[in-house]
Amino acid sequence: MEEQCVTGWAARDSSGILSPYSFTIRKTGDEDVNLKVLYCGIDHTDLHQMRNEIHMSIYPLVPGHEIVGEVVELGSAVKKFKLGDLVGVGCIVGSCGDCSACMSNMEQYCRNRIFTTNGIHKDGKRTQGGFSTAMVVHQKFVVRIPDKLSPEQAAPLLCAGVTAYSALRQFNDSDKILKAGILGLGGVGHVGVQIAKAMGHHVTVISSSDKKKVEALEHLGADDFLVSSNAAEMEGAAESLDYILDTVPAVHPLQLYLSLLKVIGKLLLVGVAPKPLQFESDDLILGKKSITGSFIGSMEETQEILEFWAEKGLKSMIEIVKADYLNEAFKRMEKNDVRYRFVFDVAGSNLN
Amino acid sequence: MEEQCVTGWAARDSSGILSPYSFTIRKTGDEDVNLKVLYCGIDHTDLHQMRNEIHMSIYPLVPGHEIVGEVVELGSAVKKFKLGDLVGVGCIVGSCGDCSACMSNMEQYCRNRIFTTNGIHKDGKRTQGGFSTAMVVHQKFVVRIPDKLSPEQAAPLLCAGVTAYSALRQFNDSDKILKAGILGLGGVGHVGVQIAKAMGHHVTVISSSDKKKVEALEHLGADDFLVSSNAAEMEGAAESLDYILDTVPAVHPLQLYLSLLKVIGKLLLVGVAPKPLQFESDDLILGKKSITGSFIGSMEETQEILEFWAEKGLKSMIEIVKADYLNEAFKRMEKNDVRYRFVFDVAGSNLN
Repeated sequence: MEEQCVTGWAARDSSGILSPYSFTIRKTGDEDVNLKVLYCGIDHTDLHQMRNEIHMSIYPLVPGHEIVGEVVELGSAVKKFKLGDLVGVGCIVGSCGDCSACMSNMEQYCRNRIFTTNGIHKDGKRTQGGFSTAMVVHQKFVVRIPDKLSPEQAAPLLCAGVTAYSALRQFNDSDKILKAGILGLGGVGHVGVQIAKAMGHHVTVISSSDKKKVEALEHLGADDFLVSSNAAEMEGAAESLDYILDTVPAVHPLQLYLSLLKVIGKLLLVGVAPKPLQFESDDLILGKKSITGSFIGSMEETQEILEFWAEKGLKSMIEIVKADYLNEAFKRMEKNDVRYRFVFDVAGSNLN
Repeated sequence: MEEQCVTGWAARDSSGILSPYSFTIRKTGDEDVNLKVLYCGIDHTDLHQMRNEIHMSIYPLVPGHEIVGEVVELGSAVKKFKLGDLVGVGCIVGSCGDCSACMSNMEQYCRNRIFTTNGIHKDGKRTQGGFSTAMVVHQKFVVRIPDKLSPEQAAPLLCAGVTAYSALRQFNDSDKILKAGILGLGGVGHVGVQIAKAMGHHVTVISSSDKKKVEALEHLGADDFLVSSNAAEMEGAAESLDYILDTVPAVHPLQLYLSLLKVIGKLLLVGVAPKPLQFESDDLILGKKSITGSFIGSMEETQEILEFWAEKGLKSMIEIVKADYLNEAFKRMEKNDVRYRFVFDVAGSNLN
C-alpha cells in the first residue's frame, strides 16, 4: 500500500475540542505493520496533549495511545504477525535501538523514544495517535492480543495496564504473601489492584475518603481499604505494607505513605506531579525504604501484561464510547466521572 | 565479675565538654562479653549527642560507638569468643530479637534497638559508650576483629565503614564494572570510595569544590572527580553512574545528583538531613531511578566489612588522639579538619 489517506479526530488548538481530520500515513515499510484501528483507550495524557498542558503540542493533534487493531498489511520482513491478527500499540512507536536502555529491553527509557502522539517519526513526519481509522507501526512496537482477550478489554492494558504491571512485576515471584497498597483508584490504580491480587498479594486500597470503599472491596476485589485522612486508621496500619503503587499525579505528602511501609518497603511512583515532592531523609534511612519511579513499560512487558491478564481471567472496567460522544467523554474524565476507563470504539464510529 | 566500676569521659551538659566520670557497668551475664576498651572512633553523632542537638540527651553522657577492645571475661553461654580476643562493638548493643527486622538479620531497624550511647538497657540502666575503660555487651552485638587488622584500623569500620558497606554490598557481585559516585568525602565517604574500588567499580568522587581533588584521586584511589557546582562538568557526566552513595547530612538538591544516574540508577542516602529533601517525580519516573535510605548496618554486615577490609588490604585514614586532646579533636572535627577519622586511644590514655 502506498501512502495512505486516513480519517482521524484531532484537536486543532488548545481548546482541546476534537473534530474530524484527514491526513496521510506512510506506506507500509519492510518492518511495518499496517493496522485497521478497532478500539482506543482514553487517558488523561490525551487531554493534557490536546490542551497543550505539557506545552509541546503541535496541531492538528490526533490523540490515542492504547490502540487495538486488526492487521491489514504486513511488510516483507515481518514474520511474527499475519493478516487478520489482533494487535496492540501503546505509548511509543520508535526508539533509537542502540542505547543501553534499548539494548536492555527498556526502550521506554530511550532518550530518543518516539511517542505515539505528538512525536516525530525518523522520516521527519509527525506521529498521530489511535483516534484514527488506520496506523502504520514498526513491528517492534506492535504486540499480539491473546486469543482470550476481546479488543476493547485489551485497550486499557496498553498504557494504564502496563504502567501498573511494569512497576509490580518485580514482586510476581515472591514466595510469601506480600502486603500491597494501591494509592489512587483511577485508570492505573484499578488495574493495579487486580494485578496485585492476581499475584496473590494482600491488597489495601488507600484513598483520601471512603467514597470508593465499596467499589474497591466489592467490585475490584481489594482486601482492605484505608482512608488516608483518618489518622487513627493510618497509625494502625503503620509499617504494615511491603510496597505501595502510588498513582497520584499531584503533589501529595509522601511521609504519610512511607510510614505505612515495612522495613525495606518500596514506594513506587508512576504519576508525575507538576511540582516537587518532599520527604524526610530519615523516613527512608531508618527503614531502608525506597522511592522508585516507573514509566509505562517495555514492549516485552506490554506483551506480558496482555498474557497475564488473559491467563488470570481479569477484566478491565471500561465504558465504550463512539465518536459523537468523545468530547463529552473527556469532560467527564476530567471530573473523574468514569469507572475506570473510556474506550473509543473507532471502527464502530464510521469515521470515513 | 560483679558490677564493675569503670572510668569514662562524659559530657555533663549541652556544652558538650568532656571530663572524667566514674560509673558502674553490669556484672557479666551468661550471654555477655566483658571487654577492656582499647580504641574508639569519633563520629559526628557523638558531638550531636554530647550537645543535645538531637534533643534526647541525658547527662552524664559517655559517647563512643566504634569500639575495639580485648575480651577479659566471658559469660558461660558465650562460645564464639575466648579471653584475649580482639572484638568490636558498634552503634547498637541490643534489639528485641522477635520482630521481622530482627528475624531477618536487620536488627538495626528494630524499633526497640538499644543504642550504644544514651540508650536504655533491658534492665533499665542507661547505656554508656566506648569512651570508657570497659564495657559489658551481649555477645550478639560483639564482632570479631580479623587477625590482619590492627585495633585502631578496625575502629572506624564499626559505624562509618559498615554504613557505607551496608548500602553498597548489593553491588558486590555485579558481573560488570559499575560506575559509582561517592558524594561527600568524610568519615563514611572515604571508606565508601575504598569499598567501591575494592569491589572493582569505577569511582567518581562528587564534591562541591575541587579542594579534595588531589586527596580523592591520589590518596584514596578514586578514578574521577566531579565538581557539582560546575554545570558543564555535571552536564558532561549526565546519566553516567549506576549508583551514588550520598553521605551528605544536610539539605542538598537531589535533582542535580539524580541527573547523573543511568536508567535504573540508585541514589543511596545515608546522611540524615535536618529538613525535608525535594525531588521532581519525573526525575525518578523517566529513568526508573530510586532514592533509597540505609542506616548503619547489621551485625552480620559489620562482621563482613571487617573481613572485607582485611582481605582487600584496605586502610582507614585516621588520626589517633589521647584523652587530653579529646575536646580539641571535637572542635577540629566540627570544622571538618580531620582526614578522615579521629580515633581515641582509650587504653593508652590511663583514664584510671
